Amino acid sequence: MRALCCDGADSARLERGYPEPSPAAGEAVIRPSLAGICNTDLELANGYMGFSGVLGHEFVGIVESCGDSGLVGARVVGEINCPCGSCSLCLSGKGNHCPQRTVLGIMGRDGVFADIFTLPVGNLLVVPDKITDTQAVFTEPLAAAFEIINQVRIGPGDKVATLGDGKLGLLVGQVISLTGCDLVAVGRHPEKLEILAQRGITTALDRDMVSMRSSFDVVVDATGSAKGFALAVELARPCGTIVLKTTTANPAGLDSNRIVIDELTVIGSRCGPFDKALDALENRLVDVEPMVSEIFHFDYGVEAMKRASEGATLKVLMDFN
Amino acid sequence: MRALCCDGADSARLERGYPEPSPAAGEAVIRPSLAGICNTDLELANGYMGFSGVLGHEFVGIVESCGDSGLVGARVVGEINCPCGSCSLCLSGKGNHCPQRTVLGIMGRDGVFADIFTLPVGNLLVVPDKITDTQAVFTEPLAAAFEIINQVRIGPGDKVATLGDGKLGLLVGQVISLTGCDLVAVGRHPEKLEILAQRGITTALDRDMVSMRSSFDVVVDATGSAKGFALAVELARPCGTIVLKTTTANPAGLDSNRIVIDELTVIGSRCGPFDKALDALENRLVDVEPMVSEIFHFDYGVEAMKRASEGATLKVLMDFN
Repeated sequence: MRALCCDGADSARLERGYPEPSPAAGEAVIRPSLAGICNTDLELANGYMGFSGVLGHEFVGIVESCGDSGLVGARVVGEINCPCGSCSLCLSGKGNHCPQRTVLGIMGRDGVFADIFTLPVGNLLVVPDKITDTQAVFTEPLAAAFEIINQVRIGPGDKVATLGDGKLGLLVGQVISLTGCDLVAVGRHPEKLEILAQRGITTALDRDMVSMRSSFDVVVDATGSAKGFALAVELARPCGTIVLKTTTANPAGLDSNRIVIDELTVIGSRCGPFDKALDALENRLVDVEPMVSEIFHFDYGVEAMKRASEGATLKVLMDFN
Repeated sequence: MRALCCDGADSARLERGYPEPSPAAGEAVIRPSLAGICNTDLELANGYMGFSGVLGHEFVGIVESCGDSGLVGARVVGEINCPCGSCSLCLSGKGNHCPQRTVLGIMGRDGVFADIFTLPVGNLLVVPDKITDTQAVFTEPLAAAFEIINQVRIGPGDKVATLGDGKLGLLVGQVISLTGCDLVAVGRHPEKLEILAQRGITTALDRDMVSMRSSFDVVVDATGSAKGFALAVELARPCGTIVLKTTTANPAGLDSNRIVIDELTVIGSRCGPFDKALDALENRLVDVEPMVSEIFHFDYGVEAMKRASEGATLKVLMDFN
């Protein structure tokens, strides 16, 4: 089958004779319809975490086969962490942090940039009819944005800044705005911020934030760059909270002295609740379609990855049909 | 008067003709009896924060003069942050983070290593008779240790590690042990850890902690070194909490990826409640006297600073009588 792979050293390549996966017990075989390229995919292709195998974890697809015959033919999205189910973390509801877990297209498990892939049936969620494929493919990163408000209580009266106007930053800005807080979404690209402004969200360019130093209760860094954390520290008030939303192949060296002196709380935030993301998509609480920069046919997956890595690009999708 | 000074570039020096301070409105003039040397003093003398002036912020002393005549002759300790009292942070009870604040012997205000110094009357707390001078001089760092349990709920059933067996680490270990949690106090010096073991606290050497990776709900880093944070990340469970207790002249570059992937919470912790520290000293809930390595007469202040900087040393005090 076709598969877009990396080997942890070189950039991504499209293989045409990649072996088809055999589903383990409890796994479904899924044929992706649309898949999204995440910055993590670009970083994995550049050697981050030493991943080797099929890339990709954002998808909407059709179940081709599985033990639970009721799901065959269903249109699904899927949670990307595959926990062992029996360790103490799994039993305490923290399966996303299971030390034995594999992660779809990220750690120990081939991803979705292929003609077919496998995932445990328990990871799958059926996509409501009202949600288009183009919307559904945003479920995974949107769930990650919802994780922030799972972790930090944000509501009316709270002064919040989101940093970053990339793919994840725009989702984070939209989700945080649902809380009714006093939000400024900060970025570097007026044309990207315009997607948020269209939804009535206050936006600002990062260079214009100097006058707002030490004034935010919560700052969410979704920039994927070390400079983002430095700006977050500038903007957070003493005893404020900084949410770190993005990993990077060149991790930030956080200034521990500022954290201590200002008694800041820094919270790492990763994968989130798929059900809340699907609910938000179904009820049009967020607007993801303006974020699609381009759709490539999967045969041009290498070109799609290249396009996704260009600065002006937002979400690049791959069509498998 | 005599004053132990630094100029932000060179090491500390004892001046004999330093000008006596004039108290501002609302300030008391205090004559220190005993003063403690903190690692921050050593770092300031080495250029940290560019401080220039009289060092020192840990003291017990006698009020020589003040507007409130009832305090003259009283034996006092004092909070080190001097906030403006009128900004939004001060009005919200966060005066320790007032952006206009001065900090005794640390920022914009001469410290206590002098024959006399000044401090606002509102910063002073009278020391109960049951507390000796040697105990009282630990009030400031002990309050900093209490700040941790002001910020993070720790109690029975929580698995906690404290890292560091220096001056602050030993106070932190004792305070955390009061919560009834399942505590391991980790260090590198068996003879220092013995002070905690004498109080029934479980101790361990850091090199023996490998088998306890990812198992602690809360890890407090009071090592004052970048390696401490790295060990804290190793020991904290996913979704666990790390408390950063120490600043350093060479701040740690924290690995932001591990914070994100493990969804850790990192909390900076600085100054704390003096009343709780005095209460703990009065009721013998902590044992500080075994931590005194040596007492120098103030005339030998430069030698005292040198002694305090030696690895095997715990608290070095200076006697002003």
